Amino acid sequence: MAKEFVKDVTAMDEDFAQWYTDVVKKAELVDYSSVRGSMIIRPYGYAIWENIKSALDAKIKETGHENVYMPLFIPESLLQREKDHIEGFAPEVAWVTHGGEEELAERLCVRPTSEVLFGEHYKNIIHSYRDLPKLYNQWANVVRWEKTTRPFLRTLEFLWQEGHTCHETDEDAHEETVRMLDVYAELCEELLAIPVVKGQKTEKEKFAGAKYTYTIESLMHDGKALQSGTSHHLGDGFAKAFGIQFTDREGKLQHVQQTSWGLTTRIIGAMIMVHGDDRGLVVPPRMAPTQLMIVPIAQHKEGVLDFAYDLKEKLSAVARVGIDASDKKPGWKFNEYEMKGIPLRLEVGPRDIENGQVILARRDSGEKVTVPVGELQTKVPELLEEIQKNLFEKAKEHREEMTTIAAGFEEFKKVVSEKGGFVKAMWCGELACEEKIKEETGATSRCMPFEQEKVGDTCVCCGKPAEKMVYWAKAY
Amino acid sequence: MAKEFVKDVTAMDEDFAQWYTDVVKKAELVDYSSVRGSMIIRPYGYAIWENIKSALDAKIKETGHENVYMPLFIPESLLQREKDHIEGFAPEVAWVTHGGEEELAERLCVRPTSEVLFGEHYKNIIHSYRDLPKLYNQWANVVRWEKTTRPFLRTLEFLWQEGHTCHETDEDAHEETVRMLDVYAELCEELLAIPVVKGQKTEKEKFAGAKYTYTIESLMHDGKALQSGTSHHLGDGFAKAFGIQFTDREGKLQHVQQTSWGLTTRIIGAMIMVHGDDRGLVVPPRMAPTQLMIVPIAQHKEGVLDFAYDLKEKLSAVARVGIDASDKKPGWKFNEYEMKGIPLRLEVGPRDIENGQVILARRDSGEKVTVPVGELQTKVPELLEEIQKNLFEKAKEHREEMTTIAAGFEEFKKVVSEKGGFVKAMWCGELACEEKIKEETGATSRCMPFEQEKVGDTCVCCGKPAEKMVYWAKAY
Repeated sequence: MAKEFVKDVTAMDEDFAQWYTDVVKKAELVDYSSVRGSMIIRPYGYAIWENIKSALDAKIKETGHENVYMPLFIPESLLQREKDHIEGFAPEVAWVTHGGEEELAERLCVRPTSEVLFGEHYKNIIHSYRDLPKLYNQWANVVRWEKTTRPFLRTLEFLWQEGHTCHETDEDAHEETVRMLDVYAELCEELLAIPVVKGQKTEKEKFAGAKYTYTIESLMHDGKALQSGTSHHLGDGFAKAFGIQFTDREGKLQHVQQTSWGLTTRIIGAMIMVHGDDRGLVVPPRMAPTQLMIVPIAQHKEGVLDFAYDLKEKLSAVARVGIDASDKKPGWKFNEYEMKGIPLRLEVGPRDIENGQVILARRDSGEKVTVPVGELQTKVPELLEEIQKNLFEKAKEHREEMTTIAAGFEEFKKVVSEKGGFVKAMWCGELACEEKIKEETGATSRCMPFEQEKVGDTCVCCGKPAEKMVYWAKAY
Repeated sequence: MAKEFVKDVTAMDEDFAQWYTDVVKKAELVDYSSVRGSMIIRPYGYAIWENIKSALDAKIKETGHENVYMPLFIPESLLQREKDHIEGFAPEVAWVTHGGEEELAERLCVRPTSEVLFGEHYKNIIHSYRDLPKLYNQWANVVRWEKTTRPFLRTLEFLWQEGHTCHETDEDAHEETVRMLDVYAELCEELLAIPVVKGQKTEKEKFAGAKYTYTIESLMHDGKALQSGTSHHLGDGFAKAFGIQFTDREGKLQHVQQTSWGLTTRIIGAMIMVHGDDRGLVVPPRMAPTQLMIVPIAQHKEGVLDFAYDLKEKLSAVARVGIDASDKKPGWKFNEYEMKGIPLRLEVGPRDIENGQVILARRDSGEKVTVPVGELQTKVPELLEEIQKNLFEKAKEHREEMTTIAAGFEEFKKVVSEKGGFVKAMWCGELACEEKIKEETGATSRCMPFEQEKVGDTCVCCGKPAEKMVYWAKAY
């Protein structure tokens, strides 16, 4: 029975895409509906999102931001105000043309992002340097009309937070851009156990309408990269388009400097593809809705269930604890909670009770340890921290193994096609080379990392002198 | 200066609608945008919503429900599956007809509510009585194409939670319907200090597709009623339309019994109109983002600001405390925080510091008390509780005063047109009488209260024998 359960998941190395699809379904993270490209986020998937959301929301508030809520719809004329922005987004928005029986005089798009709505509002509420900075954030759903979709990674509708801020100076906006990228990096590394590379996007890959875009990039198990969060310095482009001006400290009228930054439900896809294995999902303890699942053995025997529930109550003081007292067989339960990636499993049966001990099984390593009941209160949090750390270290090791320096283009192509992963290579800064690399290898520039390393003197593509080291990879 | 500030708000008794509009703007709850009928919920308004949301979410989880997230779009054919439902909602939905450049083969409506999406999903995941009950909830935005809109009360888009549950029996679904109405009533009475009448909607006023609808109705300062939350027993109508069947304990195939229930950002409108006064908003302490605002007096004098910040730190252990150390004049600050309805103001100046005391001013009664610094830790929470209780009592008294029994139709008309408020009157149960009452008085049936009272023997409209006592009122 145990085996049959696992058989439903395709092996990762056989077909990674199918493995992913199997896991999101079998771990009950999402379900499909008759709405093309949209997903139903099921209780377990949503509980993970709630944990991510509440951790990130706390960080956003600690850094002085306030939450607001902007309308879902954007009139077409408003979207068109900033030229680069509309060019970037027009091809992928959903249009509302009718309200009830009546055809609208002006089409409304369903927000793909909310820069223009914030722009219009900021114009109304900002007048003086005393009104600055304005540090707003919103939690919302957005829609982008994607052709090919996959749960969490690319969906017509997704959930995210989008920060939108206004500052007096270019330098202030720069600091904010860095600050929020750091917040995202912390969330990924410390809570989701996903190591990230911080850097700047190339002109080609930056946000439509931004001065520059900072990004955190992570590497999935299959060697493909995933953009995990972005933070944009918008300069005064939107401020000029929307007339967001303020009287500065010298009494002069100026345009504000803006930033925007976002992190989406996509990050759940990253979590799945960084930590998962052939037995299913692996959820990092700090973000796990249930950190420890108690499975009673021979639960029909007298005293077992009472003992198990008693443990649950006691351990709830140190961890998020669940118990499965259903009449399913223990082996079936083991598989189910392994599939769901619950960090620790506690097994307790009549003999354990007699001996005053239980078994703890780690989801990450599969290791089992016997622990005296009296030590559980300290051992459980310890193990959870160990698992958290171990997941991060394993992911980091994998990333190191899958990061290769390429000096020449032939080598570059060979690495991308045969090994995958990040390729570190010098780039001359020309769009032509970036496009050629993408065309011939399928790899895109992920970022120009803040931590630069001189891995050569010449562009990996054209051979001309090059100053910038870039991370390249095929990406989700 | 103080006076000028207040002058911006129209007096309640002069023009209540204008007073409302002034308050939502001046208290910085919302702003308008170029999106017709949609509102921008500003930081202060959103912080109130976050408090309501987190209190209600905790209650929803305590009662065993799990959060999920369903798609924003509903294909037209899916919406049409349940006949009464589509008839009720079709006239007021927004239609997406284009994605990017391409015209869609099938129109998508922006969800006005999500019964059909839950229906489709439940069909997939429910098979046996072991899968029941399914107790789901989602926090989401929904859209209804309203012609006339007002912030919080009626907007094209609003925020809400919608619960959707499936049960084995009619009785189980009934219990759930009652349970969630009670949760709403608790939220309103205990946290928002809004007294409610619990009861059942008439056939005419029930939810499109429901077997019956329970409601909580509250009374605004101007004597108009506001439906504050509804809980629907859906019977097996949606289950039949969507084929949601399960094998029951006897091995027989049955349709599930369903409920749905929702509470929206509208409740903020109720809070404003129940507690507000001519000085602006009054926020009940338990839901107030800031419960106590410290205003330093003569803050340029040595030691005042240090003392004030020190108080802030100490009092933060017992209340949500803010401080305004800006260079605005104290009188201006007093007016601003009165406008925002912050329950308590703490004034502290050089002389107070010398005397080891401060002044606490209550927003509800305007009363000022001098309190020794050493007693603040106990006095502040005490006063906040007193204010909470006082707001509820005042609202309840107002409701009692504004509730009138009407025996005959002439009396009924006179009460509705001259006094307003709730009218308790007997009703024969005929739609014709309900429609006639609405047509001739503008009052609608708010509910048939659970606590019935025999205020007569005959229908207030037609004079035929009547069993049901109904609350009637003009309503928002």
